[in-house]
Amino acid sequence: MIGSSQTCAGYGVLAFVSTMHIKERIVSAPGKAILHGEHAVVHGKVALAVSLNLRTYLRLKPSPNGKVCLNLPNINTFLSWDVTSLQSLLPDHAADLKNAKELDMDLVARLRGFIGVTDGMADTSTMAVLAFLYIYLNVFAESRVLPSLTVSVWSELPTGAGLGSSAAFSVCLASALLSARGAITSPLVEPEPTARWSEEEMELINAWAFLGEKIIHGNPSGVDNAVGTWGGILRYHAGKITPLSRVPVLRILLTNTKVPRSTKVLVAGVKDKINKFPSIMNPVLESIDAVSCTCERTLMEMTGEPTPEHYSVLEELIDINQHHLNVIGVGHSSLDTLCRVTLERGLHSKLTGAGGGGCGITLLRPDTDCSVIQNTIQELKDCGYDYWETSIGAPGVQQHSLSSVKDDILKVLNSY
Amino acid sequence: MIGSSQTCAGYGVLAFVSTMHIKERIVSAPGKAILHGEHAVVHGKVALAVSLNLRTYLRLKPSPNGKVCLNLPNINTFLSWDVTSLQSLLPDHAADLKNAKELDMDLVARLRGFIGVTDGMADTSTMAVLAFLYIYLNVFAESRVLPSLTVSVWSELPTGAGLGSSAAFSVCLASALLSARGAITSPLVEPEPTARWSEEEMELINAWAFLGEKIIHGNPSGVDNAVGTWGGILRYHAGKITPLSRVPVLRILLTNTKVPRSTKVLVAGVKDKINKFPSIMNPVLESIDAVSCTCERTLMEMTGEPTPEHYSVLEELIDINQHHLNVIGVGHSSLDTLCRVTLERGLHSKLTGAGGGGCGITLLRPDTDCSVIQNTIQELKDCGYDYWETSIGAPGVQQHSLSSVKDDILKVLNSY
Repeated sequence: MIGSSQTCAGYGVLAFVSTMHIKERIVSAPGKAILHGEHAVVHGKVALAVSLNLRTYLRLKPSPNGKVCLNLPNINTFLSWDVTSLQSLLPDHAADLKNAKELDMDLVARLRGFIGVTDGMADTSTMAVLAFLYIYLNVFAESRVLPSLTVSVWSELPTGAGLGSSAAFSVCLASALLSARGAITSPLVEPEPTARWSEEEMELINAWAFLGEKIIHGNPSGVDNAVGTWGGILRYHAGKITPLSRVPVLRILLTNTKVPRSTKVLVAGVKDKINKFPSIMNPVLESIDAVSCTCERTLMEMTGEPTPEHYSVLEELIDINQHHLNVIGVGHSSLDTLCRVTLERGLHSKLTGAGGGGCGITLLRPDTDCSVIQNTIQELKDCGYDYWETSIGAPGVQQHSLSSVKDDILKVLNSY
Repeated sequence: MIGSSQTCAGYGVLAFVSTMHIKERIVSAPGKAILHGEHAVVHGKVALAVSLNLRTYLRLKPSPNGKVCLNLPNINTFLSWDVTSLQSLLPDHAADLKNAKELDMDLVARLRGFIGVTDGMADTSTMAVLAFLYIYLNVFAESRVLPSLTVSVWSELPTGAGLGSSAAFSVCLASALLSARGAITSPLVEPEPTARWSEEEMELINAWAFLGEKIIHGNPSGVDNAVGTWGGILRYHAGKITPLSRVPVLRILLTNTKVPRSTKVLVAGVKDKINKFPSIMNPVLESIDAVSCTCERTLMEMTGEPTPEHYSVLEELIDINQHHLNVIGVGHSSLDTLCRVTLERGLHSKLTGAGGGGCGITLLRPDTDCSVIQNTIQELKDCGYDYWETSIGAPGVQQHSLSSVKDDILKVLNSY
């Protein structure tokens, strides 16, 4: 590990980083779902964003051959660069690591040139590479010799499904590179399986992850990287993100209808509907706001002793909001099918995110019978949907011991 | 016809009515559906009640045998009384025909005794008989000899489905008996097929029909008899009923899911939901209010030149309100099925009335293809539902020439 640069003013004293100093580490960050308030949040209402325990795992290890390697098997991206070729890209003035707010657009332009992106548009793979190189170069900018390392990432999240996969990637990158650099600690103490960072360190991880998101998305809200960093449940209102202090972990089914949709078109459609029927739509947004606030109160109460009544309220709120989302025009017949299939087995579902297809969440109770879940899953499968039995409210970014990582994931990460 | 008693002060000069003076007549009145605002109206919001062109037909003819006969084949009720036995029931003081506001509870009690209703509850048939006898006796109260006549009624409406069948019956009774008595005109001038009464006469028909409704329902809102009388579309708000001046006739499919429900339980459930989630539910009621008002505006515009855009708005409002009705807890899976089946063919449906099963309406456009309707009907039939291809906004109570009544209905009415 790279000593205690965190205690040195301005991180400016670190003049040399060699491969010897890079220790292997594994980190993970959760995906994100919107529990309530999608679309309404655009119109100044409260939204609740929750961590989704489908995680992105990143393994960083030293590389002995003077190379920087990036392996993203989910998106079939395997690249390596000579450290020396990357050094020429270093920004003239190293960024203040602790004050990462704005993108260095000159560096972004140089990186685009370096990897050969000529026009404005770029695919998922290119964006991910840009985000990696940007964070890597900035984090190690003050080193005269950049570290030679291999970064391999495997995600349980589908990409482009509105589940925060890019943010989980950015959070993993930021946490792994910042801790490799010594800008934050490596909190794991064996034999603990996992460890998390301090509040202050998470602020730094989140700030750098947000820059990664800016590279990938242009103008992100910052919610996805906040969820990836802090986990749990976040309240998002008028641009302000507040993590809820104590929240329960809730079992869910996540379903991807795989019906493609354009978030931009859906958001514009909602705006058009509000303009067309303001007296009808504005009260609906108000009601959605109240759904989010009622849900927030209920979740806070559940940190004590969750009761069946708490779950009944959560289910009612899910049903209500699903109807509201249909009213504002972001429903889809595939989502109606999801709701019907699950409701036939007493389970309550709503779309999550942009709607118009895409993903839905189904709340499971602690005592929901295994056979009910299996039957539901089978029928969703028969509809041609993808599904995951997972949870929301799980921890944010964390460092893992090797033995705490599931075998199949470790196997993938070990392949590179 | 019984002369010109209407021009005589207080109707007090008519001392003798014999069977010879009773002319045969056929009248009809439409059923009722709620287009928007069911349930919300209980909480002070606007509702739109519309006439349903499933009509109740009444044929009144003189009877030569000193009997009063009542034939209600829909509910298997066939009764006759000697006029002399009915005369003993006449109220001591004849009611002021023009000022029919309160029930004469003494007379109601005597009638209950006469037909042998001992407890508070009574079935549809008994209620219908009570309403008939009450209106008959009051209308002819000042005659020392009651007229001997046969009243036969046939309705296209299902009973107990919230479609205003009892009000249509009461409106038919009031219009036929009042015009037989000469308290209002017999407006039909052959060879016209149908004729309607003047505004002032309709006020009188409505007042007596309302008393019939009070006998049958205890505490009716007065909306059903108003729709049966005026037809078209009525705005109902805070107890005030206002007929819309000019409205289009709209083709619809009416579907009866035949799922039984209790209006009382459903109304109580909505109240409970509002009390449980006031901040969520009150805006929904507000939005339903705006749906009714927007629909009213759109219908007024359609009396000019209805455009496809008008129909699109009506369809959007139907979809929105159906979701709202689900939110306030009066949906049912049978209604979801109706909405899905029709939407698959581009048709928009909502529940009408109490919900929780019961009936739904589906808007048809003027150019909706016949094959679309037939396919939809077939699938609704396969679901086990009853259905009617009919219209809303049709005329209220009217008098018919014999030749203007459909053969099958005439055949039934002629059987008695």
